Amino acid sequence: MKNLRYGIIGTGAIGGYYGGRLAHSGREVHFLFHRDYDYVCEHGLQVDSCDGSFHLDAVNAYNDTQQMPKCDVVMVALKSVRNHLLDTLLPPLLQSDTLVILIQNGIGLEYDLQQRFPQLHIAAGLAFICSAKTQPGVINHQCYGSINLGNYSCPNEERMEQVLTDFREAGIEANLVEYQEARWKKAVWNMPFNGMTVALNTQTNLLLDNPDTRQLIYDQMMEVVEAARALGVDHVDEAFVQRMIETTDAMVPYSPSMKLDFDFHRPMEIYYLYTRPIEEARKAGCLMPRLQMLEAELKFLEKNSGCAL
Amino acid sequence: MKNLRYGIIGTGAIGGYYGGRLAHSGREVHFLFHRDYDYVCEHGLQVDSCDGSFHLDAVNAYNDTQQMPKCDVVMVALKSVRNHLLDTLLPPLLQSDTLVILIQNGIGLEYDLQQRFPQLHIAAGLAFICSAKTQPGVINHQCYGSINLGNYSCPNEERMEQVLTDFREAGIEANLVEYQEARWKKAVWNMPFNGMTVALNTQTNLLLDNPDTRQLIYDQMMEVVEAARALGVDHVDEAFVQRMIETTDAMVPYSPSMKLDFDFHRPMEIYYLYTRPIEEARKAGCLMPRLQMLEAELKFLEKNSGCAL
Repeated sequence: MKNLRYGIIGTGAIGGYYGGRLAHSGREVHFLFHRDYDYVCEHGLQVDSCDGSFHLDAVNAYNDTQQMPKCDVVMVALKSVRNHLLDTLLPPLLQSDTLVILIQNGIGLEYDLQQRFPQLHIAAGLAFICSAKTQPGVINHQCYGSINLGNYSCPNEERMEQVLTDFREAGIEANLVEYQEARWKKAVWNMPFNGMTVALNTQTNLLLDNPDTRQLIYDQMMEVVEAARALGVDHVDEAFVQRMIETTDAMVPYSPSMKLDFDFHRPMEIYYLYTRPIEEARKAGCLMPRLQMLEAELKFLEKNSGCAL
Repeated sequence: MKNLRYGIIGTGAIGGYYGGRLAHSGREVHFLFHRDYDYVCEHGLQVDSCDGSFHLDAVNAYNDTQQMPKCDVVMVALKSVRNHLLDTLLPPLLQSDTLVILIQNGIGLEYDLQQRFPQLHIAAGLAFICSAKTQPGVINHQCYGSINLGNYSCPNEERMEQVLTDFREAGIEANLVEYQEARWKKAVWNMPFNGMTVALNTQTNLLLDNPDTRQLIYDQMMEVVEAARALGVDHVDEAFVQRMIETTDAMVPYSPSMKLDFDFHRPMEIYYLYTRPIEEARKAGCLMPRLQMLEAELKFLEKNSGCAL
């Protein structure tokens, strides 16, 4: 079996980490950079990681996908607010059997991309990782780091398996999961904590320490569970909610990605994290009143804090 | 018919205005002061009012209800977070037929007071007024000013009528309304706007200008309507909600009392404005998910902004 050639669109905290590990283990990886392009061409890419730091001296760096080669696997780690850019970013990298993995948060991402590229082979990448890009060309991987892949529309199961193998050989825990279940399970955590830390300007631990907001987080998680079940997703239940809360209790005080986006005046991923799943649930006859309220609060805060794309 | 003797417990923006007007029109009014006692004894009470300013030189001022005479009517205009003080503040003013009017916001206030004083004659006072105490001994009445009375447990209808007459002769628009309906109608406005201006650090106009929070305010108002109807309250419906929103559209940008309390680090009236009506509704089988979420956010903000009684 020939080695896979990887492309990374969006080389930040997530794309830089997973792509960096693959390159460090000897895979051929081509990285699209935005602001960091000049810096990385000169200095390379540094990954400071709790699982072992490393430096890539010679990076296949680009600032234009037109210059990139065709790839077997493209990992998209853009913020989902920029997904409209994929219409022009993706085509230069595609061949007939390219697998595109969306390592992004939210519901409906794969569906929307498929609408624009009907023949595309798509998978979801669900990253469980605390990582941040702290300065140009430097990724700071603090903890966790596993990734789950959910097959959305890839007929080539061997390709999926080979990607999992490549991840594992690069030192990354990687598993194959059921697509819908995985996306909604991630939403159980993402929808309450991302927005509530913004709305109340706080961190995960303080939300769980206060009995009123702890109950609210529980109620919001249960809204996601009910929505998932209305949409026919199995294996998402109250026990899973309890486990998510206990897992978060055990975490260090944490600011989810939306909180960082808001604090740094970057646009928040409100559409795929809130608007879209709420809409999907409503179509299935399920209301999510608390999360819809949170969506309205976030839209208000984004508008009234002067954030713009 | 003999003239009524009035007592005011809580001489602030509300008690100072209505009591001041009654005194100015020649009624006998005795005022309980807290921090402003010394100032008012020396300088009197100033009411700056859009309906005509006036000054009371000689005020029947007290800083201890033990020193106050028995009264025919006692108007309580404390913040409801201090209502436990009524156990000791009220008895010195009471005779067998004293009417106690609670000019306070929320649901359940009269019930709780009746539990502690089973024989007491109680009415609700619903003030529609923008008024603030801007400095010691100075009330600033900006706009509106009417008051509605709802009879809770006063068998003496003549007494209620005489109070209405006294108000009117003092230049205050005053009407008799059905108790339950009046309390819940006021909650339709109070519950969304008081809390949301705190949660999003804003004013009424910005909440209505944003389409997402405008819809949220509507949804929250409808939760109050549904709760009221589940409790058997008539004449509260969707048309009333529409009217409340239009009325607020026509108002100047406004910070409700809870917003001022929060900004000035005073305790917020969360219990009678949120916890209690949510509890009453729940007993009647009606959930208020958005307002319960708002309650949790307010409790979190109160605790995490270091506010204390």
